[in-house]
Amino acid sequence: MMIKNIVFIGAGNLATHLALALKQASYSICQIYSRTRLSAETLAKQVDADSCCDYAEVRRDADLYIFALSDKALPDALEALQLKNKFFVHTAGSLPMSVFENYTSNYGVFYPLQTFSKAREVDFLKIPLCIEACSQDLESELMHMGGEISKSVQLLSSKQRKQLHLAAVFTCNFTNHMYHIGQELLQEKGMDFDLLKPLILETAEKVQEIPAKAAQTGPAVRFDEDVIKAHEESLNMHPDFQKLYRFVSESIYHLHKNEK
Amino acid sequence: MMIKNIVFIGAGNLATHLALALKQASYSICQIYSRTRLSAETLAKQVDADSCCDYAEVRRDADLYIFALSDKALPDALEALQLKNKFFVHTAGSLPMSVFENYTSNYGVFYPLQTFSKAREVDFLKIPLCIEACSQDLESELMHMGGEISKSVQLLSSKQRKQLHLAAVFTCNFTNHMYHIGQELLQEKGMDFDLLKPLILETAEKVQEIPAKAAQTGPAVRFDEDVIKAHEESLNMHPDFQKLYRFVSESIYHLHKNEK
Repeated sequence: MMIKNIVFIGAGNLATHLALALKQASYSICQIYSRTRLSAETLAKQVDADSCCDYAEVRRDADLYIFALSDKALPDALEALQLKNKFFVHTAGSLPMSVFENYTSNYGVFYPLQTFSKAREVDFLKIPLCIEACSQDLESELMHMGGEISKSVQLLSSKQRKQLHLAAVFTCNFTNHMYHIGQELLQEKGMDFDLLKPLILETAEKVQEIPAKAAQTGPAVRFDEDVIKAHEESLNMHPDFQKLYRFVSESIYHLHKNEK
Repeated sequence: MMIKNIVFIGAGNLATHLALALKQASYSICQIYSRTRLSAETLAKQVDADSCCDYAEVRRDADLYIFALSDKALPDALEALQLKNKFFVHTAGSLPMSVFENYTSNYGVFYPLQTFSKAREVDFLKIPLCIEACSQDLESELMHMGGEISKSVQLLSSKQRKQLHLAAVFTCNFTNHMYHIGQELLQEKGMDFDLLKPLILETAEKVQEIPAKAAQTGPAVRFDEDVIKAHEESLNMHPDFQKLYRFVSESIYHLHKNEK
């Protein structure tokens, strides 16, 4: 089998970026389904596809159906579609491959590990693609398709992918929350967030080369109690940030102490 | 007054990068003091300076003394030096300018906001320099010196600098801790940290353009309880990470809820 025609179920951020990358690699995206007509049409226009917002109208002759939906929406979509023995993949970090088990005998996972916003272009070549499939044949198909759009294609089990997704929450969502708090603290004293931007970039660039453990600096890893106490006092008006400050500082201290 | 000859008190990461940048901008670094002879000599060699490791040997004829010491070490250094009415600056985020009050009438702060490691080169031109001085004349001197090595020189009060330093702990040290946890989680299931590197970079690059609040993604901001619960279960063997996961997730949720 060679994948040529692809239907997308979902038209969100991830679906948009992935469909554009596949289109550019000469795959034919024949149809976009979304609950929301405008979303379906918007993406369909960008990749020369049909669109629909009713599961009954989804084409039944595609080589591959890519489900790029929220974890909650997937089971309903599978029930509603009633497509038998088609090739299904989903793009979710946290869902096991086995969600497809009762619906088809050809299935897998095609998980691009990145944070997607519609407003930002991404270079798909640099995005790690995590592949899993229920057979070696399908695995080869997906590895080939992945290789057409990314330089980093990997086989991962459902268990590994779940752990990777968890690690991504720490390194992306939780990190972004730290940026958010930094931004709030600066605004409060009339400073511009621009001041922190070079530091944020350098912190991210540092761990591209040095292990995070070795890259750590600051009062917590030195267990500099005077600075920690002064910081906690500064946060008296933000009990939530104060609790978080204390808690992350302790966690840094413990992780480094245990490894000494 | 024109600053020409500079003595560095301290030879750590920050002192090293700053002395090199000033040297390159044609300032003369005449002497490096460090408690540790090897540190003093290593940096002195790089910037064609003398070195010493006894406060009694510190030259008394320099135009400027830059104290790049830990917050704790500074008061002892000031007591030991017994230099009267010299131009003193420190490079610390968390110390007020007033630490110099009893030792000289010419003082200020020259705080480069960055995370420094000896192993990594940094482009000083991009590092925000935060300046404070006890008089307008000295302020101009420091602004001029700053402008010779950086494109981003700012006046900040001691209060603002303290808050900036606190924000930097969140956006640099705490962020790096999130990377560290991600790295541990991956290693545990036989995955390479390389997988997370593009995500880490993109997360940092995103907030160079988009406010952190708008850039947030993931289960906590969606309050996706199923995914959050599954993640917490995955962390059963790491009570410390589990507590942190719950706590940061709640903090994300509250910060976004309050602002809705």
